[in-house]
Amino acid sequence: MASFITLMTDFGIKDGNVGVMKGVIWSIAPQAQITDLSHTIGPQNIREAALILARSAPYFPPGTIHVVVVDPGVGTDRRHIAARLGSQYFVCPDNGVLTLLLERAEAEGWPEEIVHTNKPEYWLAEVSHVFHGRDVFSPVAAHLANGVPLRELGTPIHDPVRLSLAQPQHTPSGWRGEVIHIDHFGNISTNIRKEHLGEPPADIEMRLCGVNIYGMVRTFGERPVGELVALYGSTGNLIVSVVNGNAAQRLNAKVGDLVEVLV
Amino acid sequence: MASFITLMTDFGIKDGNVGVMKGVIWSIAPQAQITDLSHTIGPQNIREAALILARSAPYFPPGTIHVVVVDPGVGTDRRHIAARLGSQYFVCPDNGVLTLLLERAEAEGWPEEIVHTNKPEYWLAEVSHVFHGRDVFSPVAAHLANGVPLRELGTPIHDPVRLSLAQPQHTPSGWRGEVIHIDHFGNISTNIRKEHLGEPPADIEMRLCGVNIYGMVRTFGERPVGELVALYGSTGNLIVSVVNGNAAQRLNAKVGDLVEVLV
Amino acid sequence: MASFITLMTDFGIKDGNVGVMKGVIWSIAPQAQITDLSHTIGPQNIREAALILARSAPYFPPGTIHVVVVDPGVGTDRRHIAARLGSQYFVCPDNGVLTLLLERAEAEGWPEEIVHTNKPEYWLAEVSHVFHGRDVFSPVAAHLANGVPLRELGTPIHDPVRLSLAQPQHTPSGWRGEVIHIDHFGNISTNIRKEHLGEPPADIEMRLCGVNIYGMVRTFGERPVGELVALYGSTGNLIVSVVNGNAAQRLNAKVGDLVEVLV
Repeated sequence: MASFITLMTDFGIKDGNVGVMKGVIWSIAPQAQITDLSHTIGPQNIREAALILARSAPYFPPGTIHVVVVDPGVGTDRRHIAARLGSQYFVCPDNGVLTLLLERAEAEGWPEEIVHTNKPEYWLAEVSHVFHGRDVFSPVAAHLANGVPLRELGTPIHDPVRLSLAQPQHTPSGWRGEVIHIDHFGNISTNIRKEHLGEPPADIEMRLCGVNIYGMVRTFGERPVGELVALYGSTGNLIVSVVNGNAAQRLNAKVGDLVEVLV
Repeated sequence: MASFITLMTDFGIKDGNVGVMKGVIWSIAPQAQITDLSHTIGPQNIREAALILARSAPYFPPGTIHVVVVDPGVGTDRRHIAARLGSQYFVCPDNGVLTLLLERAEAEGWPEEIVHTNKPEYWLAEVSHVFHGRDVFSPVAAHLANGVPLRELGTPIHDPVRLSLAQPQHTPSGWRGEVIHIDHFGNISTNIRKEHLGEPPADIEMRLCGVNIYGMVRTFGERPVGELVALYGSTGNLIVSVVNGNAAQRLNAKVGDLVEVLV
Repeated sequence: MASFITLMTDFGIKDGNVGVMKGVIWSIAPQAQITDLSHTIGPQNIREAALILARSAPYFPPGTIHVVVVDPGVGTDRRHIAARLGSQYFVCPDNGVLTLLLERAEAEGWPEEIVHTNKPEYWLAEVSHVFHGRDVFSPVAAHLANGVPLRELGTPIHDPVRLSLAQPQHTPSGWRGEVIHIDHFGNISTNIRKEHLGEPPADIEMRLCGVNIYGMVRTFGERPVGELVALYGSTGNLIVSVVNGNAAQRLNAKVGDLVEVLV
């Protein structure tokens, strides 16, 4: 039976390092089906990796192993970990990249098990100080794919590092949040969600980057090309888009920008 | 037996959305072998997707399923379709992305079957207004890979949307066509083909972007590095290249530019 | 049993040509597990391809077939070859892309076998003058994956083309070498290696691009963010990095720049 493994890194796609990780995995677990989630996470951008991981992992089959190597602390004493959260596995540095999934696991009562992957017999024989994606994370993921139980890979821990992520604030007039992601199309994603605002309210007013947007639509095509619209994205976040255009470029928006919603 | 599935989108490679589609497919059809055709189609550029799809799909094994998500009309009432053209399957929005393959199927008498994929039992349980690649196209492709017959996926249609694509014109002095693609190397591809001009004519004269090119070569290496040459590309189209250089940059060429050939 | 095939090209990721190669391979060898090593090798940059291939290939399982298509001579009389070096196979133009692996094979006494792949029965039926990746290299690799012996694919040769690569020079005061690669993070890799300098010497002085660096570290995290450091990279080369930053941008470094080490 196939074992599914996904890879997410900030390595880029030019230097062959992602390929090397696949070679290491297949050398140990030749049956693994490996795919890429993203390799153009901003260098050392743990928050971006955490966000994309949390949005993507739940769509994979139970038992999928997600390897994340966005690792500014490589070679220092930061821990490397493996975790089971619900039906999925994760292998990554202990730097907060699991924060959103840990929150969801706790909110939904998913089974949760985390180990510090400190047993060198599950690493490559030689471990560099600068490429644990190759030397530690890939072999650990491959052994997991081969059926080695999580608890065999290291020592249980209960204090994984967590990022401190801004939560939207309820204000007298509505909600105050921030921009959390800009996608390939220039759609601006915010941390204000459907849970905060409910079904798209007709009389909403949204302010960001010096512009006001009135009302929400259900999808891009409801308005003419080039119009700035607010809507719920595919993961339930309030997003701002330009129909068939690039909202982030038009508004010069960036991650962290303030977003206000008046309801 | 493996089922081959290819993915082509304008999603880019950063945001994890292509990975999510693979997760959805594997959750339904774990035996699927999935590969990427391209995810850097220009945003909403249906013509570019149609061209690359028509050039690529025929090289895949019979039964391969090609999923194309370049979908400016997502969430509107544009149809989503699945098609069999010859030995290959396609799952995509009904926006013209199959135009060139439909023309070829008709020219060559390939069997052709198209359905409006309107049966929600083959979609994800929850369908967003903005990400049908995840919620509709991927699950439909996965069910097809599992052996669900095309006709089970929806209602037959006979009027798929077609792009109106410029055809080269025969002129008193030769042919008038246009630039249809610029590739990664800067090679300039035109819609004038070997069928129009025959074996590379020695005394041809070609005009585009304010320059004249005399004669054609069979391959790049026949001329010195840096020289501008005309030749047939790997799909039989007349192309303009700079030997080991970038013709599109040199000529400032873009898709739609006029091309004239005097024979 | 799966056959592993890797692909490395300078084709970029937009035009679908890499997908076409996978389609050709799967049409002949449907059991092949195919992965990408890199498709953003600089156009016609054989040296870059040679370097990345030599760093990556040894991490793949025995029997893996590496296809390299960085091929400025396509359609000329340059040979195309297939080789076994140690436990791995290579299919590529005979243009020097194997240089570093040939050197290693000879240094370590690996078995070595090279053939000029001149038997058209192992190519596609129709061979273009401009896309041997599709028409020659992919089908040859697929037949190899199907168990066709190397010697069946063509005529043995013993004079593969080799690049002339600069070696670091021992000087009265230390070593003189050059920059050989800049990676996605802006790390600057040199051709001076651990074999030349030994365990990281505390009192080393390094000069490149008009700056001096004193001492070496074991990993990035030993110094504050933004500091310029020298260390051994994951393949044993002396590299220069900015902690969580981009050294190549800061120093305006490029491949071929002089590097001096005083020991």
